Amino acid sequence: MKPVFSNRAKNIRASEIREILKLTSRSDIISFAGGLPAPDCFPIDQLKGISKEVLQDMGVEALQYNATEGYLPLREKIAKRMQKQGMDAKADNILMTSGSQQGLDFSGKIFTDPGDIVLCESPSYLGAINAFKAYGAEFVEVDTDENGMIPEDLEAKLEKYDRVRMIYVIPDFQNPTGRTWSVERRKALLSLAKKYNKVVIEDNPYGELRYEGESLPSVYALDKDDLVVYLGTFSKTFCPGLRIGWVCASDEILNKYILVKQGADLHSNAMAQRELSLFLDHYDFDAHIDRLVKLYRHRRDIMVDALDKYFPKDIKYVKPEGGLFLWLEVSDKIDTKPFLQDAIKEGVAFVPGNSFFPNGGVDNGMRLNFSNMDDENIEAGMARLGALLKNL
Amino acid sequence: MKPVFSNRAKNIRASEIREILKLTSRSDIISFAGGLPAPDCFPIDQLKGISKEVLQDMGVEALQYNATEGYLPLREKIAKRMQKQGMDAKADNILMTSGSQQGLDFSGKIFTDPGDIVLCESPSYLGAINAFKAYGAEFVEVDTDENGMIPEDLEAKLEKYDRVRMIYVIPDFQNPTGRTWSVERRKALLSLAKKYNKVVIEDNPYGELRYEGESLPSVYALDKDDLVVYLGTFSKTFCPGLRIGWVCASDEILNKYILVKQGADLHSNAMAQRELSLFLDHYDFDAHIDRLVKLYRHRRDIMVDALDKYFPKDIKYVKPEGGLFLWLEVSDKIDTKPFLQDAIKEGVAFVPGNSFFPNGGVDNGMRLNFSNMDDENIEAGMARLGALLKNL
Repeated sequence: MKPVFSNRAKNIRASEIREILKLTSRSDIISFAGGLPAPDCFPIDQLKGISKEVLQDMGVEALQYNATEGYLPLREKIAKRMQKQGMDAKADNILMTSGSQQGLDFSGKIFTDPGDIVLCESPSYLGAINAFKAYGAEFVEVDTDENGMIPEDLEAKLEKYDRVRMIYVIPDFQNPTGRTWSVERRKALLSLAKKYNKVVIEDNPYGELRYEGESLPSVYALDKDDLVVYLGTFSKTFCPGLRIGWVCASDEILNKYILVKQGADLHSNAMAQRELSLFLDHYDFDAHIDRLVKLYRHRRDIMVDALDKYFPKDIKYVKPEGGLFLWLEVSDKIDTKPFLQDAIKEGVAFVPGNSFFPNGGVDNGMRLNFSNMDDENIEAGMARLGALLKNL
Repeated sequence: MKPVFSNRAKNIRASEIREILKLTSRSDIISFAGGLPAPDCFPIDQLKGISKEVLQDMGVEALQYNATEGYLPLREKIAKRMQKQGMDAKADNILMTSGSQQGLDFSGKIFTDPGDIVLCESPSYLGAINAFKAYGAEFVEVDTDENGMIPEDLEAKLEKYDRVRMIYVIPDFQNPTGRTWSVERRKALLSLAKKYNKVVIEDNPYGELRYEGESLPSVYALDKDDLVVYLGTFSKTFCPGLRIGWVCASDEILNKYILVKQGADLHSNAMAQRELSLFLDHYDFDAHIDRLVKLYRHRRDIMVDALDKYFPKDIKYVKPEGGLFLWLEVSDKIDTKPFLQDAIKEGVAFVPGNSFFPNGGVDNGMRLNFSNMDDENIEAGMARLGALLKNL
């Protein structure tokens, strides 16, 4: 048969990048391409005892159908952690999702009709762009500097486009740039969102991974008008394989997410939620995050040092205060997409920056991940990349 | 703020039924409402050893980001089981999903635009109706008897409606009616799907739970033209809490499901997939299903006997040859939706049949689940329901 797909499915295509990056699972490639956390800190041994305990003490509940909202004790612990971070969150306002990617997908589904506009940072997270595109959303990029979206440009775009339905932001250690918004910019975003009655989707996968400087209040923490939908995840602070994320939003908005979750997959893995809940009971999660922070800070420093040592002098980069990524702009004579092919031949991979601009246009960017490789591989990979760039 | 939702999100509302059924989690209620498998057969003890083994032998892979398609050894074992059931399936044509509900959601996303039509049995599965509605699909019910959709009516509707995009069927022990399609009807469905170039979504959660009679080939097994997308799940044969389902389809179609999965939640829980894979290695899965079959057959018989014993003589029902549900039509003077309120006051719950007709119209149906309650509760609940009906 010749299958007839929906208009939205016709728009969903595999990115060329994804095909290239499939090569990077080869063990001889040093990959700075993914966003993988370091397995060194995965709670493997702790989970051995915990999974047995879950099965022993609540085996039936962990294996039976569960409420769509998720496991209440876990939602209560997440609410408490959010409160400690200055956010006014209650368990009733939290829905467990399959990673925060599912929260992004639901946001697209709940807020955008085909042709509607999402305002986003320039550049922005590829996975969010793809999730929203699947619902026919279009993207208008807001001018963004090292402090976040520029309010004047944000307002100009809110004025210009009447079909804006969401403002999507990653204010802490942004993906791909590693940049962090100033408090002033966060407040300016909220005041414009209020003025134009737009929902803000705040994606915060990396906020707890800060390597220096002081933590800033999330946009959700500063919001007094129920403007913000907050997306959280344990993929970077616990592990991604169990797919545990959450959405926190006002009653009216969260109710839509719950109904959408019910139609999408009924509920998230019930055993994994209980395992995480017991982990939070039995272990010091802040100490666990401290270990991650120490490891990733060290790896970031190795990568930044290698930039200075091996790369041409005309590159531009921002040293990120947290998160997993370093963003680099090389000479504007270089298009990093064909350059990736050269790099892979030399056994190194990264993600070309162009992929992160929903409307294209910037060809000399590179996103480098520093969390997943050990010192030696970071050094070796960066030396190869630097030499290649110098030879161009 | 006053949130502005997408048109599709405006259409998603909590069903009244769901609100009523929330009451049924009260422990003093005998609930025939859900579709819960019996926890008596959950593999709790086996999973204690298996989860430790997964963490010991492949802890990093189980907790790290995984390929969207799912864990290859599990997909290979599923392909083998499908082959044993007469289906021409390869691991490459299988995508792991978060329960088969996610396969339904993706089917709506991939094949329907707002206003497109899904042809379905009358009545049909509520969760599928809700999943497809979220994409703006409309439903045309095809006349259905004890052997499945009536081909003449199916063809009439394929002729009449030019926006038909999917034919959604549950040929084995259908939800809610418990009916099973004859082989002739399966073949007629395929020949019409071919003639009109329509995709068939075959939802088969109960096929392996047959209590008498001979297994029939799935529609997928009979298909020679890549017309069928097959949705499978381990929710009824293993356990639902781990959320393990799959989609099997031709390369071209499966590729869309993979891309949609990537945007929806990247991949399914990686640890759960490995646990199930080891369970299939270490234990005799067919023997496990045999135990389920014995238990459910017994419970079905208790329920059917109770119908004869306690219910008015003017009821109509089909004794299901498998699955989890018994479908009942009471006197057409009775509307089972208000009757549910009376039943709950007496401590018994069921799902009123009307919910399963996407366009409404049949008010005297009831769906009763027999898998989740023990003999005593089935007997007691049926006695109460019967007495109430006789008093009306």
